[in-house]
Amino acid sequence: MLNFNLHTTTEIVFGKDIEEQIGPRLKELGAHRILVHFGGSSARTSGLLDRVEKSLFAAGLAFVELGGVSPNPKVSLVRKGIALAEREGIDFVLAVGGGSVIDSAKAIAMGVATKTDPWQFASTGTKPDTTLPVGTVLTLAASGSESSNSCVLTNEETKEKRGITSETNRPRISFLDPENTYTVSKFQTGCGIVDIMMHTLERYLTPEGGESDITDRIAEGLLIAVRDAGRRAIANPRDYEARASLMWAGSVSHNDYTGCGRKRLFPVHKLEHELSAFRDEIAHGAGLSVLFPAWALYEMKNDFPRFAQLANRVFGVEMDFHHPERTAREGILTMKRFFEEIGMPTHLAQLGIKPENYAQLAANTVRTVKGPVKSYSALDEQAIIEIYKLAE
Amino acid sequence: MLNFNLHTTTEIVFGKDIEEQIGPRLKELGAHRILVHFGGSSARTSGLLDRVEKSLFAAGLAFVELGGVSPNPKVSLVRKGIALAEREGIDFVLAVGGGSVIDSAKAIAMGVATKTDPWQFASTGTKPDTTLPVGTVLTLAASGSESSNSCVLTNEETKEKRGITSETNRPRISFLDPENTYTVSKFQTGCGIVDIMMHTLERYLTPEGGESDITDRIAEGLLIAVRDAGRRAIANPRDYEARASLMWAGSVSHNDYTGCGRKRLFPVHKLEHELSAFRDEIAHGAGLSVLFPAWALYEMKNDFPRFAQLANRVFGVEMDFHHPERTAREGILTMKRFFEEIGMPTHLAQLGIKPENYAQLAANTVRTVKGPVKSYSALDEQAIIEIYKLAE
Repeated sequence: MLNFNLHTTTEIVFGKDIEEQIGPRLKELGAHRILVHFGGSSARTSGLLDRVEKSLFAAGLAFVELGGVSPNPKVSLVRKGIALAEREGIDFVLAVGGGSVIDSAKAIAMGVATKTDPWQFASTGTKPDTTLPVGTVLTLAASGSESSNSCVLTNEETKEKRGITSETNRPRISFLDPENTYTVSKFQTGCGIVDIMMHTLERYLTPEGGESDITDRIAEGLLIAVRDAGRRAIANPRDYEARASLMWAGSVSHNDYTGCGRKRLFPVHKLEHELSAFRDEIAHGAGLSVLFPAWALYEMKNDFPRFAQLANRVFGVEMDFHHPERTAREGILTMKRFFEEIGMPTHLAQLGIKPENYAQLAANTVRTVKGPVKSYSALDEQAIIEIYKLAE
Repeated sequence: MLNFNLHTTTEIVFGKDIEEQIGPRLKELGAHRILVHFGGSSARTSGLLDRVEKSLFAAGLAFVELGGVSPNPKVSLVRKGIALAEREGIDFVLAVGGGSVIDSAKAIAMGVATKTDPWQFASTGTKPDTTLPVGTVLTLAASGSESSNSCVLTNEETKEKRGITSETNRPRISFLDPENTYTVSKFQTGCGIVDIMMHTLERYLTPEGGESDITDRIAEGLLIAVRDAGRRAIANPRDYEARASLMWAGSVSHNDYTGCGRKRLFPVHKLEHELSAFRDEIAHGAGLSVLFPAWALYEMKNDFPRFAQLANRVFGVEMDFHHPERTAREGILTMKRFFEEIGMPTHLAQLGIKPENYAQLAANTVRTVKGPVKSYSALDEQAIIEIYKLAE
């Protein structure tokens, strides 16, 4: 177990009918003028935006709206949000939506408080040291952004997608009502399931961290719960317990509890970000479900015991004591079948990516991370192309 | 899954050789004059107190010492600490020790900040609304007080032991170095293992909370890790990975992550507090290891499936699909044998409690909690005596 620091500062308000608590709690937290940030029209048509704003209004809080966040949130809208927030004297940013809306809100908040263009942080790797307080009303169990210290932005001019990680990025408060995810489509639910699992798997399948048994057991427990709740939520979108498991797992999976004492590398996320930067219509979860089994098949040789442990404990694959490599492989294939069962793609062709794109994508990836992608092995362009071939 | 609020505000600094970070971090947190609170002479003889104070000194921080905290921390020493802190203008309380030292430090901090005698909060159930910041340097994996919102005090005049629960009780920062627990005796290590498991079991074995599968899986993962690390730490006290698992599990087990969406009742703790209030030499963990199997055998009839789930998932007891009650019972007996294996008592006589004490103890318990103890059933004096008989 490596040394670690952990400070999960986000206050969680979880459950049914919690929206009426939003106004009073934001007022207690000192908010006066709130930027309500959201995505498309569904926040309005579902009635959620009205319930949120009613609660703000009842608490005597002023607010302005900024909608229009798209998947893979764009730095251009963030800049618009910063200008609006400065003009209106905003002191609190409230995201109503999923990970893209929350990431956009985090970037606006850091831009206003640091008086720096957020893409500066993304492109240079420097960290913001302050921010406006951010709240979230979550509508999608997936990114974990509602309590994580990271956000991801896309620069549509350069076609780059980059993350900003800083403890100042953790939202001050998040309101998690599982009923707000009842209307999420099967495909988006599947994308969320994959993303949640990957946030834990990217912490679990790492070369550094030793035994870290307590962290492993918590991670494995979470993966089992997501596996089971995922099947249930796909079968019955209004299954409260399943939606609740997914929603809470989404937060725990990315607030660092499933990675304590292990080194974070996130190679599959880095490979994926390049796909969805290359083709904007690729959903993050879909890119991950294609890339993870291929990455795992490529890397398992570097740590058969750990991949076998995952296979056995999470997917119930019987341990082959004489051939742990068979257990490891069977676990990865079981996970791939699970992704397919919940309707997710597992082949690059399903994302519209063709063999003739491989070289450019691999080059883009290595350029973005400034060298080979750190993983069990250092993934250079040739290795990345090998992984693409395993994902055909 | 019930609605829940969670705000785990304690910053965790975990790992080897972290003591040198104490001074700089406390300075960053705005501390100027620190009360260093500890228990017996072992904090000095182990060299830990010197390392802590060297770090404070190097950071230019002033400090005064107050030692002498005993197991089941006394309100009389807390009052002495409050007077000292007021005289010295203390603005930060740093506990160096285990749960008793931390609980005493929390009570001193709340007493200074609220200008109220802490026993007032304990005896009336009112909550403090402010406190001085508290830090901890943990030397015993057990109570979880290093990141919990509770503390327990004993009034030696009235022989009462009572808890104070308030979000203001969570320490601001906790320094967790597993090596500081290498010298903990086998018996105290065993007491810690039981206490850690009980903090999760008291959240897990409750009548309210529905399925809460994500919380169950995290709880079960933690229990498995503690079971395995417990055996290892008893066999080899200098097993870093085992000590690290126990130390981190101690925090997670009582900071509420293993209870999200379930109702807290803590009946076994309430039964135990009366034992160690009655006979001060009874260690909390020892009281719990005697009472838990008896309580579980008494209550399992009210929820065979949940007790069977625990037996199967955590202790590997094969499910008897036709007779879940047998699985439930076998799980409890397996746990009892595990407690005995790690050297813990499982009979009241081992604590020096005799049948002629039962009536008075049961009456004390009901008096302290002002009515029957809430559990699966409402435990009145007669039921408590039945549980004592199962613990003979």
